[in-house]
Amino acid sequence: MFLTRTEYDRGVNTFSPEGRLFQVEYAIEAIKLGSTAIGLRTKEGVVLAVEKRVTSPLLEPSSVEKIMEIDEHIGCAMSGLIADARTLVEHARVETQNHRFSYGEPMTVESTTQALCDLALRFGEGDEESMSRPFGVSLLIAGHDEHGPSLYYTDPSGTFWQCNAKAIGSGSEGADSSLQEQYNKDLTLQEAETIALSILKQVMEEKVTPNNVDIAKVAPTYHLYTPSEVEAVIARL
Amino acid sequence: MFLTRTEYDRGVNTFSPEGRLFQVEYAIEAIKLGSTAIGLRTKEGVVLAVEKRVTSPLLEPSSVEKIMEIDEHIGCAMSGLIADARTLVEHARVETQNHRFSYGEPMTVESTTQALCDLALRFGEGDEESMSRPFGVSLLIAGHDEHGPSLYYTDPSGTFWQCNAKAIGSGSEGADSSLQEQYNKDLTLQEAETIALSILKQVMEEKVTPNNVDIAKVAPTYHLYTPSEVEAVIARL
Amino acid sequence: MFLTRTEYDRGVNTFSPEGRLFQVEYAIEAIKLGSTAIGLRTKEGVVLAVEKRVTSPLLEPSSVEKIMEIDEHIGCAMSGLIADARTLVEHARVETQNHRFSYGEPMTVESTTQALCDLALRFGEGDEESMSRPFGVSLLIAGHDEHGPSLYYTDPSGTFWQCNAKAIGSGSEGADSSLQEQYNKDLTLQEAETIALSILKQVMEEKVTPNNVDIAKVAPTYHLYTPSEVEAVIARL
Amino acid sequence: MFLTRTEYDRGVNTFSPEGRLFQVEYAIEAIKLGSTAIGLRTKEGVVLAVEKRVTSPLLEPSSVEKIMEIDEHIGCAMSGLIADARTLVEHARVETQNHRFSYGEPMTVESTTQALCDLALRFGEGDEESMSRPFGVSLLIAGHDEHGPSLYYTDPSGTFWQCNAKAIGSGSEGADSSLQEQYNKDLTLQEAETIALSILKQVMEEKVTPNNVDIAKVAPTYHLYTPSEVEAVIARL
Amino acid sequence: MFLTRTEYDRGVNTFSPEGRLFQVEYAIEAIKLGSTAIGLRTKEGVVLAVEKRVTSPLLEPSSVEKIMEIDEHIGCAMSGLIADARTLVEHARVETQNHRFSYGEPMTVESTTQALCDLALRFGEGDEESMSRPFGVSLLIAGHDEHGPSLYYTDPSGTFWQCNAKAIGSGSEGADSSLQEQYNKDLTLQEAETIALSILKQVMEEKVTPNNVDIAKVAPTYHLYTPSEVEAVIARL
Amino acid sequence: MFLTRTEYDRGVNTFSPEGRLFQVEYAIEAIKLGSTAIGLRTKEGVVLAVEKRVTSPLLEPSSVEKIMEIDEHIGCAMSGLIADARTLVEHARVETQNHRFSYGEPMTVESTTQALCDLALRFGEGDEESMSRPFGVSLLIAGHDEHGPSLYYTDPSGTFWQCNAKAIGSGSEGADSSLQEQYNKDLTLQEAETIALSILKQVMEEKVTPNNVDIAKVAPTYHLYTPSEVEAVIARL
Amino acid sequence: MFLTRTEYDRGVNTFSPEGRLFQVEYAIEAIKLGSTAIGLRTKEGVVLAVEKRVTSPLLEPSSVEKIMEIDEHIGCAMSGLIADARTLVEHARVETQNHRFSYGEPMTVESTTQALCDLALRFGEGDEESMSRPFGVSLLIAGHDEHGPSLYYTDPSGTFWQCNAKAIGSGSEGADSSLQEQYNKDLTLQEAETIALSILKQVMEEKVTPNNVDIAKVAPTYHLYTPSEVEAVIARL
Repeated sequence: MFLTRTEYDRGVNTFSPEGRLFQVEYAIEAIKLGSTAIGLRTKEGVVLAVEKRVTSPLLEPSSVEKIMEIDEHIGCAMSGLIADARTLVEHARVETQNHRFSYGEPMTVESTTQALCDLALRFGEGDEESMSRPFGVSLLIAGHDEHGPSLYYTDPSGTFWQCNAKAIGSGSEGADSSLQEQYNKDLTLQEAETIALSILKQVMEEKVTPNNVDIAKVAPTYHLYTPSEVEAVIARL
Repeated sequence: MFLTRTEYDRGVNTFSPEGRLFQVEYAIEAIKLGSTAIGLRTKEGVVLAVEKRVTSPLLEPSSVEKIMEIDEHIGCAMSGLIADARTLVEHARVETQNHRFSYGEPMTVESTTQALCDLALRFGEGDEESMSRPFGVSLLIAGHDEHGPSLYYTDPSGTFWQCNAKAIGSGSEGADSSLQEQYNKDLTLQEAETIALSILKQVMEEKVTPNNVDIAKVAPTYHLYTPSEVEAVIARL
Repeated sequence: MFLTRTEYDRGVNTFSPEGRLFQVEYAIEAIKLGSTAIGLRTKEGVVLAVEKRVTSPLLEPSSVEKIMEIDEHIGCAMSGLIADARTLVEHARVETQNHRFSYGEPMTVESTTQALCDLALRFGEGDEESMSRPFGVSLLIAGHDEHGPSLYYTDPSGTFWQCNAKAIGSGSEGADSSLQEQYNKDLTLQEAETIALSILKQVMEEKVTPNNVDIAKVAPTYHLYTPSEVEAVIARL
Repeated sequence: MFLTRTEYDRGVNTFSPEGRLFQVEYAIEAIKLGSTAIGLRTKEGVVLAVEKRVTSPLLEPSSVEKIMEIDEHIGCAMSGLIADARTLVEHARVETQNHRFSYGEPMTVESTTQALCDLALRFGEGDEESMSRPFGVSLLIAGHDEHGPSLYYTDPSGTFWQCNAKAIGSGSEGADSSLQEQYNKDLTLQEAETIALSILKQVMEEKVTPNNVDIAKVAPTYHLYTPSEVEAVIARL
Repeated sequence: MFLTRTEYDRGVNTFSPEGRLFQVEYAIEAIKLGSTAIGLRTKEGVVLAVEKRVTSPLLEPSSVEKIMEIDEHIGCAMSGLIADARTLVEHARVETQNHRFSYGEPMTVESTTQALCDLALRFGEGDEESMSRPFGVSLLIAGHDEHGPSLYYTDPSGTFWQCNAKAIGSGSEGADSSLQEQYNKDLTLQEAETIALSILKQVMEEKVTPNNVDIAKVAPTYHLYTPSEVEAVIARL
Repeated sequence: MFLTRTEYDRGVNTFSPEGRLFQVEYAIEAIKLGSTAIGLRTKEGVVLAVEKRVTSPLLEPSSVEKIMEIDEHIGCAMSGLIADARTLVEHARVETQNHRFSYGEPMTVESTTQALCDLALRFGEGDEESMSRPFGVSLLIAGHDEHGPSLYYTDPSGTFWQCNAKAIGSGSEGADSSLQEQYNKDLTLQEAETIALSILKQVMEEKVTPNNVDIAKVAPTYHLYTPSEVEAVIARL
Repeated sequence: MFLTRTEYDRGVNTFSPEGRLFQVEYAIEAIKLGSTAIGLRTKEGVVLAVEKRVTSPLLEPSSVEKIMEIDEHIGCAMSGLIADARTLVEHARVETQNHRFSYGEPMTVESTTQALCDLALRFGEGDEESMSRPFGVSLLIAGHDEHGPSLYYTDPSGTFWQCNAKAIGSGSEGADSSLQEQYNKDLTLQEAETIALSILKQVMEEKVTPNNVDIAKVAPTYHLYTPSEVEAVIARL
């Protein structure tokens, strides 16, 4: 029932009588409006693919960054509020750099994900680093460390899961079904690229071009595909 | 009566006219939605067993951590909001490490439990460590110290009890009845494993596999069972 | 009239037009739901007795602590929210230890009680030590100092009184009447034990056993009765 | 009109459209429910007398402190919330001790009263010493300094007046009329004792005994009457 | 229209749609209920006269201070909440003392007035010195410095004006008219005394006596008239 | 529509759905009630002229300061809440003094204006210097620096404009029209004086006298006209 | 539906049930009321052109600054609240200066834009630099760095995009359509000037003159056109 809900969301981090946190649920709504992103883990590395909504031909497509590097062995795809995602990524970049400086070795993918989620969990608490509301963004974090390639999925509640494959954003429901049908653990990286892009194609309303999708891999280092590399994947569909 | 209740929950830590703290009660509702966890104390050590809800075949089961190590002599199982539990466990890890460093000996299980509950009690007070709402999580804390093996149960109000056996989460009501029937103080650790898993099996809707349950023991140190060790317990059912 | 009351309790420490502090009154309601506790002062020392609600046979009775030591010459029985009581007792323990350290002598029972009440009075003020709501607990503080044995009673408003005998909690009304009939200043400590337990027995719904009551004395040092000592008192009834 | 009033009292220290401070007025209501206290100034010294409501025969009458010493030359009687009064008196004790330490001489009665009222005035300001609501207490402050004996009356607004005689609490209206009839500046201290107690007797519902009244004088030092000294005054009535 | 007004006064320092600050206007109402005070500037010095409401014959008239010294060359008369006025006067005393200490000369009357008004203006800002509401008091500040005698008038908004003559409080409207008729710049100090008291007499409901009025002058130093000096002025009426 | 507006003004610095800041608009209303002020820039310097509302013949006209010096090369005229203007001017005086001290040269007129507007913009943010509401005042800032004479106009939103001529306050609409008709860039300072005063005369309800107007110039230093200098300008009308 | 919206905007940075941030949307409304600004990127450099609303002939047109220099290689055009834009620009100036000082080289255009957006994103968090509401301004940031000329567009949510051409403000819808028709990547800087001004001309209600438009370029350094340079562009239309 709508009206009683509205009584909870001004206390940004408060339980409802049914034990729910509405601001977190509302933030998840913000992600359902976002563009679709897909990740797949293979033995050779992890593939990330995102839809880019380039609303005007005068917009520079490369400035619509939906996949970003965190460290040389970690990258992430995002869906939801871009400015929120940038804050989280910037936080993760500082954490991974500090870790390298203090310990002389890269931060593990799980620790990096945990650091992002710690920040996300503590919204509404008024301290310096946290936001006054939940971060309205989900991330697919792809990385490669001593445990091999891994893919993590985070949501606005600060929870994270390790996955073999995952889709987020407005087309995630259909994309997740397709992933379950097509994923197996023995995929090559090239097969994963093809699956990711063919599923993106299904959920996008326009023709797939190097202008409206981005692809990246961590295998074992982060690499964002150039337009011609994207074109090559499109050609394989 | 529903409407008057809603007038209390925005002041997160305020009594109702009947002397109740609604935010704490609402947080307890959040736990009733959580997965089931069971703990049993035997003379040989303590057993913890949890249901893991792996919502998608693409999720990595080992990343759904519902049992975590606090110190080498203490572990805990959780039900409710995982991100909240991680914060509490991280706090307890720091406390036990500090205790070892300052006193050169492990922290007792009761002191560790008390430290967790102190943090849980002080929600809504705006200081640096506490949350702006109750922690939406219950813990079963298993440990072994100079007093032998012990099992503690905590709830979102910051209260704790020592138990011989206890179940938490959505299936806790039925599981607690079964525990009362089957528990006695002379159980062996192996018998406790079998009882824990057979009760979990009753409350879970799907077939029990090493993918959807986790088992751990503290006897006298923390050990999370490998898939094959879990398989062995399943085989005994 | 109920509705106008509700307009006051969100400002946690605010007078109503009739000069009342509703949050304090609501906290007192929380105590009326608590288990019963009884204290009696004799010339030989003070006796405390409490009902323990052990809701499950799997709960460890000794972990349901309703009587706690504050210092070697002071103990207290509590009724209401246990987690709140633990915070107050911990505060009192620090105060009495500091006093011993600074002055080389034990803190008087009245000063200890005053220190507890200072903390209780200042709820809702946002400083580090105080709670954001009243403490939902009443204490019976038993002690022995240079003025001999004494018994104090505190309520959530931060007020305290010295008593010869007092009952708190859900059964306090009937228990107080019985105390007035049976108390006289020349009771021996053993007689006080018997009176306390016989009154507890009247207000408890189940049979009195060493599992569901606790007894302690300060005569002149704090001592919590062992199960067999409790059994001996039960046998005298 | 009641409803519009209630709109003001949550902003604890805010003017109403008619230029009134409702929280202060509500705190004054709290005092009208308090026990009666009476003060009289004579040339020989000041007399304070209070009604003590000993609600149970098991309560220790001497622990119901309604007259307290501030410094050896100042004492006060109170009506209203006892825990609030204790905070004010404790503040005044620290101030007078600091004054003796810094200047090597006692603080004047007026300065002491001013210090108490400064604290009372600044409620609702969130700093460390002040309360988050008005102090719900009135004081009669009796003292003796270089200006001779003096009697001050304070109310919850932080205002004070010097008086020759004054009554506060539930019976203050009738008691003030009697004081105006019977007071003159040439009373002896003994006559003042008799007048104070005879007026208290009129407003109390029960028989006056050393258990339910307290008497003190500052002449020129503070002295709380022993039960037998009180008995002697009662005998003179 | 009354109801819409009430929506503004809880934000203590907020404009209404018509550009008004209601809390300041309400504080001004508090002054309209206050006792009347009058000030006149002559070439010889400044005269202040106030009505004292001595509500009971048992009240010490000299303790109803409505005229107070700020520094030896500055005094003030007040109308409104006495406890608020005392805070302002105390602040001004510290400022003038600090000025003497730092610069070795008295603070000018205008700077003193400005310092008082700075404090009055900044209410509702939560810092240590300011109030959480406007000061409910108006002052007539009389002083004598290098510019000769001067009279300032302040209101709760923190605004001040220099005047030749001014009345404040419940009788100010009639008194101001009389002042305009009777004031001229060549009055002697004695004539000013007579005018001030004769106007006070008109607005007071009772007979003027040394008990219910106070007179002071700054000529060039502050002097509060003794009862016999007041009697002498009364005799001249 | 009036009622929905009122829902915004308690969050002092919050956008309405139409993208408006109501508290700023309400503060602008406060200025429309203020006295009229006029400024004109000529090549020889800048002229400021203000109406002074001397509400009583007993008020000292020179204490109604509506034109104030900021630094020796900058002055300002104000309309709105005088106490707010004093705070802004005091802030500007400190800034210009600090600039002289740090850089050994006067602050430019634009930098001074920007510094004033920075303070005005940041209301409602709870830090030490800013107000909890917009400053209810507009300023005409006249100055002379390395760029020659200049005139700035500021409003409560913290915006400023450079002007050749400008009127503010209750008569600003008519005065601005007259200024547009009569202003040209080749006016002498004397002609500007005459225009300013003749326009003020039109919008004032009473006869213009040295008592109810003030004139100042910055040419190139600040000078407030004496009564006889004002009289001379009046004579030229 | 209007009324439910209004329930969200007082919590300045809170999600609605649909996952929206209303205060940000309302701030965007403020920009739709602003004057139009246009930017075009060419291979030779970037052109910015803005409409200036000079509401009175007495206003100094050059003081209506809608195009400002950030660093010698970066400038920006703005639409919305000018005072908010000045704060952002001032922040960016400090950042670019610090960067030059720390690293001995100019800050890139993207880093400068990110720094501006970081400040914009964190509104409502109470720390020292951020505002208590969103910044009500959009910027077109033109710059030239090691990557050549670039144009960025920012909105109140703290999001930014890189563009080839973009219009903001009240006329942006029509202007954006015209830009899409007329823009191509091979435009010369002179052609870009002509296009920018001819589009501005269409959306402005009055004749274009050097008084009511400003033009600037970054090619490769920032230059604001003089009136005669603007006149030359107008002449080419």
